[in-house]
Amino acid sequence: MEKDYRDLLFEQAKKWVFEAAANIRRDMQGPLDIETKSNANDLVTKVDKQTENFFAASIRQMFPEHRILGEEGYGDELENLDGVVWIIDPIDGTMNFVHQKRNFCISIGIYQDGVGEIGIIYDVMADMFYSAKRGDGAYKNGVRLPKLQKNVTLERSIIGINHYWLCQNRLVDENVMHHLAKTVRGLRSYGSAALEFAYVAEGVLDSYMAMSLAPWDIAAGIVIVGETGGVTTDIDGQKLDLLHKKPVIASNTDIHQDLLSWLKKEENDIQSFSSFSFDSQTN
Amino acid sequence: MEKDYRDLLFEQAKKWVFEAAANIRRDMQGPLDIETKSNANDLVTKVDKQTENFFAASIRQMFPEHRILGEEGYGDELENLDGVVWIIDPIDGTMNFVHQKRNFCISIGIYQDGVGEIGIIYDVMADMFYSAKRGDGAYKNGVRLPKLQKNVTLERSIIGINHYWLCQNRLVDENVMHHLAKTVRGLRSYGSAALEFAYVAEGVLDSYMAMSLAPWDIAAGIVIVGETGGVTTDIDGQKLDLLHKKPVIASNTDIHQDLLSWLKKEENDIQSFSSFSFDSQTN
Repeated sequence: MEKDYRDLLFEQAKKWVFEAAANIRRDMQGPLDIETKSNANDLVTKVDKQTENFFAASIRQMFPEHRILGEEGYGDELENLDGVVWIIDPIDGTMNFVHQKRNFCISIGIYQDGVGEIGIIYDVMADMFYSAKRGDGAYKNGVRLPKLQKNVTLERSIIGINHYWLCQNRLVDENVMHHLAKTVRGLRSYGSAALEFAYVAEGVLDSYMAMSLAPWDIAAGIVIVGETGGVTTDIDGQKLDLLHKKPVIASNTDIHQDLLSWLKKEENDIQSFSSFSFDSQTN
Repeated sequence: MEKDYRDLLFEQAKKWVFEAAANIRRDMQGPLDIETKSNANDLVTKVDKQTENFFAASIRQMFPEHRILGEEGYGDELENLDGVVWIIDPIDGTMNFVHQKRNFCISIGIYQDGVGEIGIIYDVMADMFYSAKRGDGAYKNGVRLPKLQKNVTLERSIIGINHYWLCQNRLVDENVMHHLAKTVRGLRSYGSAALEFAYVAEGVLDSYMAMSLAPWDIAAGIVIVGETGGVTTDIDGQKLDLLHKKPVIASNTDIHQDLLSWLKKEENDIQSFSSFSFDSQTN
């Protein structure tokens, strides 16, 4: 993508994001009309739908040749990422939106032929605007984020991870994860994948791991994390394809490979700490 | 305690908290001089110590008859809570302070003869001032917090809980906790006990559970949660004595008893879901 065109798209996307955020702040004063999707905890609100519809209609009017991948069904059915594709989560962290009235964000990634050109993650209530353009660094409220700190180790890292990783699951051995929990400095869970990507880009988290994320959860984050020198892959260390749900790990490059190695530990590696137990917790 | 005296103490404590916070914001620009305490992840910084020293010296000068219980050793050795006692955590969430430069707070509880009279929790970087005076309600930045919502159920609740509860531990059966993780709507972990108390008072969390908290982690929070109609107990449902480290649960009263019942489930109760597995994670 030409720089001028990338800049134009960025300015337009930013304008729409602030307009959508103003509408969200207004609408959350009223009843939220909450529905559940595939399971009881997968919520969607009228505001999610209205916001995605706003983006989809605006994009189709101004950029009719662009395509849209969105969470709530106002986008296109995509089988590839050819051309310019807007990948949109109108409200990432819907549970936080419904229960907490904060800690949610608008997430927009703009890709051309599968290459991330623009990432925007806007924490609507905290008014924190994280953004990146490919090759141009990442920014928070207009201030450039520094490159991620070097010499981070697992033992000194804080990792964003859903509690489910520590329960029996089909992806990783939970006993290995219990040992990891004891090895790293701390674990956090904020309830918004896109915001947790932004925190990795800021160095507030050294890694964020999620078991099953959709393209709209990660599209913006991949660009922003990449522009501060971080890396995002699937659990096998492979690049993500952005058309399917996958386990996702975004990290400071210093610990990314170490984390992947942990996740690949086999059952027989963990006999030595099977008697391991947690005695204390500090805050 | 007489209302006039409580009001006087509150205004003085508030003044000192804002003064300490200004110093913290200044000092965190420089090197933090990090030490570790009992284990590698229990951090303390020069700023923790300076801040507690500031409070202790100020209190001793203005209220020489008061006693002080503090995390960093500038307080008194207390064997009871007779008289007026200031219970101080100069920086709650030291790991967040060191790594994230945000998401930490100053926590001050003022008790008379063991009764919580004043609670102050100040999120220094977000400039969120949570406070309560006994019988006078709880406030956030001067705006009264509403009484906690009724008819909250476990299935619709968001709980703040350290990931360690889901690992093998000496307190509760981790398999029961895995089932709880699947039963509630969501789990969060923010890394500051005092702030998580404030979130319970706000209804942002419906409960906060911690395995081992010291008096300074909870003294302010108990007062603030109590003033919005919440409740704080140990794992047996008993009132906390504020002289020892204990497991602590602070909740919306609607779910507090249910949570305690969960924690008391016996091993033989959980055979029926031993094959339980997590298949998906949503954000």
